[in-house]
Amino acid sequence: MDLKISNKMQVVRGSVIRQMAEAAASRKNTISFANGNPSSDTFPVEDFARFAADSFRDDPNSVLQYGLSQGYPPLIEAVKARLTQKWGISFEQNDLLIVSGGQQACDFASKVLLNEGDVVIVEEPSFASCYNTFRSYGAKLVGVPMQPDGMDLEKLEQALKDYPQTRMLYIIPSFQNPTGFTTSMEKRKKIYALAQAYQVAIFEDDPYCELRFAGEDIRPIKSLDTDGRVLYAGSFSKVMAPAFRLGFLVFDKALTTRMIVSKQCTDVHSSLLFQHIAHRCMTQCDYQAHLALCQDVYRRKSNLMLSELKKTLHPSIRCSQPEGGLFLMLFLPEGMDSMPLVWEALEHGVVCVPGSGFMIDQDAPNNGIRLCYSTASEDEIVRGAYILGNLSQKWMEKAGF
Amino acid sequence: MDLKISNKMQVVRGSVIRQMAEAAASRKNTISFANGNPSSDTFPVEDFARFAADSFRDDPNSVLQYGLSQGYPPLIEAVKARLTQKWGISFEQNDLLIVSGGQQACDFASKVLLNEGDVVIVEEPSFASCYNTFRSYGAKLVGVPMQPDGMDLEKLEQALKDYPQTRMLYIIPSFQNPTGFTTSMEKRKKIYALAQAYQVAIFEDDPYCELRFAGEDIRPIKSLDTDGRVLYAGSFSKVMAPAFRLGFLVFDKALTTRMIVSKQCTDVHSSLLFQHIAHRCMTQCDYQAHLALCQDVYRRKSNLMLSELKKTLHPSIRCSQPEGGLFLMLFLPEGMDSMPLVWEALEHGVVCVPGSGFMIDQDAPNNGIRLCYSTASEDEIVRGAYILGNLSQKWMEKAGF
Repeated sequence: MDLKISNKMQVVRGSVIRQMAEAAASRKNTISFANGNPSSDTFPVEDFARFAADSFRDDPNSVLQYGLSQGYPPLIEAVKARLTQKWGISFEQNDLLIVSGGQQACDFASKVLLNEGDVVIVEEPSFASCYNTFRSYGAKLVGVPMQPDGMDLEKLEQALKDYPQTRMLYIIPSFQNPTGFTTSMEKRKKIYALAQAYQVAIFEDDPYCELRFAGEDIRPIKSLDTDGRVLYAGSFSKVMAPAFRLGFLVFDKALTTRMIVSKQCTDVHSSLLFQHIAHRCMTQCDYQAHLALCQDVYRRKSNLMLSELKKTLHPSIRCSQPEGGLFLMLFLPEGMDSMPLVWEALEHGVVCVPGSGFMIDQDAPNNGIRLCYSTASEDEIVRGAYILGNLSQKWMEKAGF
Repeated sequence: MDLKISNKMQVVRGSVIRQMAEAAASRKNTISFANGNPSSDTFPVEDFARFAADSFRDDPNSVLQYGLSQGYPPLIEAVKARLTQKWGISFEQNDLLIVSGGQQACDFASKVLLNEGDVVIVEEPSFASCYNTFRSYGAKLVGVPMQPDGMDLEKLEQALKDYPQTRMLYIIPSFQNPTGFTTSMEKRKKIYALAQAYQVAIFEDDPYCELRFAGEDIRPIKSLDTDGRVLYAGSFSKVMAPAFRLGFLVFDKALTTRMIVSKQCTDVHSSLLFQHIAHRCMTQCDYQAHLALCQDVYRRKSNLMLSELKKTLHPSIRCSQPEGGLFLMLFLPEGMDSMPLVWEALEHGVVCVPGSGFMIDQDAPNNGIRLCYSTASEDEIVRGAYILGNLSQKWMEKAGF
């Protein structure tokens, strides 16, 4: 074949998460803390099935024919109403596009705003599939370390100074993937002020915000946005079902035309049946009760994993304390690489993802281990935490801790 | 707002088709020959509803959780089998990705192969949403006129000579949108030979190939491809339902990794429920009979529109004779602009799309008018053809024909 791969697609990286998932799939009886999937216990399957049947019966063409690129209008209105009521996001100057999952929100933010050679400043570690999306538009990535209350702001400001070609900040404000950290309101305000000062956009990726199971809600940066620089992405993947491939993107009205053309250039519109189902879930069910159920599931699992880890984990290993979402992160002592421990855990039947999979440079050693408590059963969480804890004792002692 | 739109998204164009659809929507009782939608008479709604119910009942997680980026393996196998059996496409050196509609196939072909400044040679007129996709990757478009048996090959070769930065040819080989023309086997072979000689890729977009209602099947260029330069796209939008947002892309195995990463960068995977439904439609129903039904619907409508137009259309207006698909095209005498006639037709309640909407330069006069016979009822086709025919008499006489 004499075809050449485009420059921008030569630099994207394979997913370490997918690698671990495949390694796990080739073994029997593994306990997976690797997949960032929501718990299937949270899927309201009977509602979904009933709504699907209703749609096919009542007005099949409305879920089978081509639809509007911006999205199904009643769903758009329902999402806007919730974002205003719950998060204080106004739609006087903002608009909303239904997208095929949060990943597509990242794709469109990049498509509409990034030129080749632009810099995107990212939290590090963070969700590597979005790193790849930025790379797929020829952007360069600059990382700013995460702290338990959000990005290190001194390093953020330094990066903004060092890289005047910065066009965008990428932030997961709530129950971040992979750390489980949540950016404080104080830091959200300062990050926004820095974005204003340096005239950069913020891509605020907030798929977990409805999954808070402890502490107080913190409003998104988008709610502070007075000059249209924040693009705010939400997702139905974690509160309804991932395979719906449904999310939304909020942006200044000045971007509406380009966002709609982006949609027309890629997949024309998102699946209508799922848009109808999502709308019915939000308006014909007790949506608040459904979210409370999701939160209960993750509160229970998170608490269980933390308390079980506490029993056996070597004391030199720190552990994040998420107040929501699907993940927590273990941190080995600074300078240690988690990879050998992750592989040995796999040998013992426990799959987790090394922190290196969430770094710009996946090949550098990293001391983090992401643990998803969302899909494992309670029994698996107990057994898996025990295995990890015992291994950690062995490893840390060997390393002289 | 101080955010700037990316260079590549500054040059995309709004869709004339969507403009006409909106103009039509604001009037009552219009007859639409504008939308390229399939006929809803062809949707096997009861099968869809039953398969959806079965999936939700039997194994809900398999249609609700995250799935494989490449696609649902049984659907991949069913599509490969059909492409081999019906079209002679081999999968020894080729691979297949399930995509969210044919448009996404165009997006990924562009993402993986195009650099900014590359040239894509396109049939002209052709499907403008793909023009926009190419533009969204910074490509420049060069048009080659369509003839009833395919591209003008002399002009194609001249364009290849004139633009050495050409990376890709864009071709709709069967029942082309908007002309209804089909590229002959002779021209398919020559186009492939030219692509070899000039070392360019071919993006072969074939969403209508299963809708042949007259004449003999012609194999796709992909079936001739010995060196992996053809990327072949198919779609379920016209043979199942557009809102499934489901299609596929066939490409050389050397591109597999990049194609899968493209999927992970944009929407992770396509809707699983629809992949399951599509697989069941292909394997548990009489798929051949379903396709025959689709073909019957379009044969009947196409024949009716052609015979009705013949009664009143001014003889100076040529009309394409499609052997399949959803469209035909009227051609006013060379040099005439169809736009005023299209607007007057709209005043008289008939919506169609001017040929200019399918040109690289949408603002230049164009003598074509695309008529979709797919969604109008038989009564509407008769009345609409009568209105168009009478208007054409008036216009042509006024123009001195």
